[in-house]
Amino acid sequence: MTGAAAHDWLDAQEPALRARLYDFARIASVSTDPAYAQGMMNGAAFLAAYLREIGFDHVAVNPTPGHAILTGEWMGAPGAPVILVYGHYDVQPPDPLDQWHSDPFEPELRDGRIYARGISDDKGPLMVALGAMEALMATAGGLPVNVRLLIEGAEEMGSAHLEDFVTAHPGLVTADFLLSADGAMWRADLPTVTVASRGMAALNVTVRGAAKDLHSGRYGGGVPNAAQVLVTMLAALHDPETGAVAVPGFYDGVVPPDAETRAALADIPFDEAGFLAGLGVRQGTGEAGYSFLERNWLRPTLEINGLTSGYTGPGFKTVIGAVAEAKISCRLVPGQDPGRILDLLEAELTRLCPDCATVSFARKPGVAWPSALPLDHPGLRLAMEVLEEIYGQPARAVRMGATIPIAEMFDRVLGMGTVFFSFSTADEDYHAPNEFFRLERWQDGLRAWVTYLARLAAMERPE
Amino acid sequence: MTGAAAHDWLDAQEPALRARLYDFARIASVSTDPAYAQGMMNGAAFLAAYLREIGFDHVAVNPTPGHAILTGEWMGAPGAPVILVYGHYDVQPPDPLDQWHSDPFEPELRDGRIYARGISDDKGPLMVALGAMEALMATAGGLPVNVRLLIEGAEEMGSAHLEDFVTAHPGLVTADFLLSADGAMWRADLPTVTVASRGMAALNVTVRGAAKDLHSGRYGGGVPNAAQVLVTMLAALHDPETGAVAVPGFYDGVVPPDAETRAALADIPFDEAGFLAGLGVRQGTGEAGYSFLERNWLRPTLEINGLTSGYTGPGFKTVIGAVAEAKISCRLVPGQDPGRILDLLEAELTRLCPDCATVSFARKPGVAWPSALPLDHPGLRLAMEVLEEIYGQPARAVRMGATIPIAEMFDRVLGMGTVFFSFSTADEDYHAPNEFFRLERWQDGLRAWVTYLARLAAMERPE
Repeated sequence: MTGAAAHDWLDAQEPALRARLYDFARIASVSTDPAYAQGMMNGAAFLAAYLREIGFDHVAVNPTPGHAILTGEWMGAPGAPVILVYGHYDVQPPDPLDQWHSDPFEPELRDGRIYARGISDDKGPLMVALGAMEALMATAGGLPVNVRLLIEGAEEMGSAHLEDFVTAHPGLVTADFLLSADGAMWRADLPTVTVASRGMAALNVTVRGAAKDLHSGRYGGGVPNAAQVLVTMLAALHDPETGAVAVPGFYDGVVPPDAETRAALADIPFDEAGFLAGLGVRQGTGEAGYSFLERNWLRPTLEINGLTSGYTGPGFKTVIGAVAEAKISCRLVPGQDPGRILDLLEAELTRLCPDCATVSFARKPGVAWPSALPLDHPGLRLAMEVLEEIYGQPARAVRMGATIPIAEMFDRVLGMGTVFFSFSTADEDYHAPNEFFRLERWQDGLRAWVTYLARLAAMERPE
Repeated sequence: MTGAAAHDWLDAQEPALRARLYDFARIASVSTDPAYAQGMMNGAAFLAAYLREIGFDHVAVNPTPGHAILTGEWMGAPGAPVILVYGHYDVQPPDPLDQWHSDPFEPELRDGRIYARGISDDKGPLMVALGAMEALMATAGGLPVNVRLLIEGAEEMGSAHLEDFVTAHPGLVTADFLLSADGAMWRADLPTVTVASRGMAALNVTVRGAAKDLHSGRYGGGVPNAAQVLVTMLAALHDPETGAVAVPGFYDGVVPPDAETRAALADIPFDEAGFLAGLGVRQGTGEAGYSFLERNWLRPTLEINGLTSGYTGPGFKTVIGAVAEAKISCRLVPGQDPGRILDLLEAELTRLCPDCATVSFARKPGVAWPSALPLDHPGLRLAMEVLEEIYGQPARAVRMGATIPIAEMFDRVLGMGTVFFSFSTADEDYHAPNEFFRLERWQDGLRAWVTYLARLAAMERPE
């Protein structure tokens, strides 16, 4: 199965597939607002009907304490790889409505862009995946590989019940790897696949000096100043010379990027100076000896996210604060255990706290592990190969400085790698008014998914 | 004139003087609340009538853009010292009324304490000074020294127009030194005179990184974090080993306390450990090698009074703050110029700010200079001598870690030292419900002022 027949089918049927995408986009499946409960149910029902029509088996709308999760499978290719295709049918709220140039729930094509709420995140990319499979089913009577589907309805609200569902029903989701229709490409001018995300662990730090705020004249000089104690502790968490995190053990297990990885990053067209200037930053900063992309993609960080003590209103108040607080988060890379990192951070802050004060901690509930796909993962290599053919330039393996909850969760819970194969782009205003999806990317995507699935059948199954 | 006759007069007339004090305390002369405007006028009129009755000349109720300032003088002792007696007729608001055990404007004697709003601050101590002068006038037909009076009505709201008045009318206030009926003694168990106060200068520091807050995942590691920059700068303002201020030039001109001064301080009965424990402080802190009283009274400080950056609400937000702010104040001692200290601080913070960020400053309007009376000031020596005779133990020269606006202003504007000779005590709840004045201190004070004025006549006039 080369997919040639399916490509021909797509040439003829693309308008019909697009009409179905528009129908899907007309459903106001907003997960975060209970006022859209009917839209959520309609969205799930629409997809279930479509999946059954295509030819998927065991299509089910599975209830959860939140929104329903759709599953289904086609397992008619014994010996071929099994993939789990992931997407979501919920969308962001359309507000503020008055900033839309067209009805958010009535798709409109303008200048090569389809405008609608959720069209880029994730209804368009999801219908790319399903449309490609319809083309294969229609032309070959089945798929070249085994496919399981997992389409959730709560991605825009944190996928609260997804992990429980996956844990409870491994038989519905077990696969060689996850192929995600969600997850935008980095830039419109460069074909990219996301291969890694950083983990995260966060902590609230509270320093206490005296029992109450004190007058800086009557007491100042001889009593602990919680703000002073805190800034001194926080300043010691980084090496002033290198900008590296100075918490003992923080880098244990972190493998410095090798020459090949660094060369690949350096080879990505990226105007670092222009990018930073666009953020209003006078000069990049961070761990010495690394570029912005290396700092953000490859290296772990410790950032102060919030700071407060004493009087913070207008004017002045000569007070010595009894309490000072900081919120700290660490972005983590492979080799780091989020819980251990918080242990190390608490130990170091405790050591740094002088005898005149006390320090206490409150951890942010939940941590995220770093995740990364090996660059030689066959599903990833194939995605890059298909992209290069379409765009006529090498696809780049890019990373995320942020956490990708879905990849992190499947990696942690099922040890399953995630290949992102989405045709939306990060600039498509997907959490803002006038969300759009590029028509060309929709068409590229349909063909790319057909090619991908057809070629995947010939590949060795990954370990 | 030894004052013996005046003392006899006091033995007989103290009840009448006290009745007059009660009449004064019945006047609700609250300066901060316009609803008490009539009380303020009545308070000034009451005093003006009393001063004329005693025998003062040129008694005037001088209008200002705020509350009236009373002046008057008795200059009938040619060649004798001239003193300026200072006090104020305004009081704090009586709120919260429901916490008073008796009417705040109906004095009540209970257990040796007179309860009323303003009775300790400053109507009681002011009437001590005026009652003593009435005794001298009544028994000798005049005063042993020349006395000018300056009794203001806006002390509880910051003496806003006093400096302008003094500057505009030097002839009404010029004297050898100021003798203040205001300014409570430090403790009830120890006769003390306050001889110095620290100055103050304050600054708002703003650090800016990027143009807006950034996501700590998508950008973290490679862009400036304003909070991180600020804490690193602030931490560098103190020497971690010695606790001393590390701003270059900060201590220029500061004379380290000599052995005599330190011995005098060490000799003051003071339970430092108990005092700190009472504040909930685990351990004193500050400049190494100094006691609490030395740190608070003799040494300059730099304190962080407020700190804010990023997200400071409940929970977590993984944001990199574009802006971080700190409020800093310095308490200053003789030898330090508040404006120069701010110059030095700004220069050092500018030097400490890395190239990836910018720092800007907003100075608190107005600074206070440190002020100190030489320990050999004859007016001060005499006050200590009189106190020792009354209380049978040496009076101690104590200092204030805070600023005393009246002493600072007269020192700065007229180069005039201030001798505090008040018989109220810092524990008399003078800005709280159930303000009281100790009856015994009222009686001690009347006799002490008579003795003081009588002996002052024989003293050399200070330089």
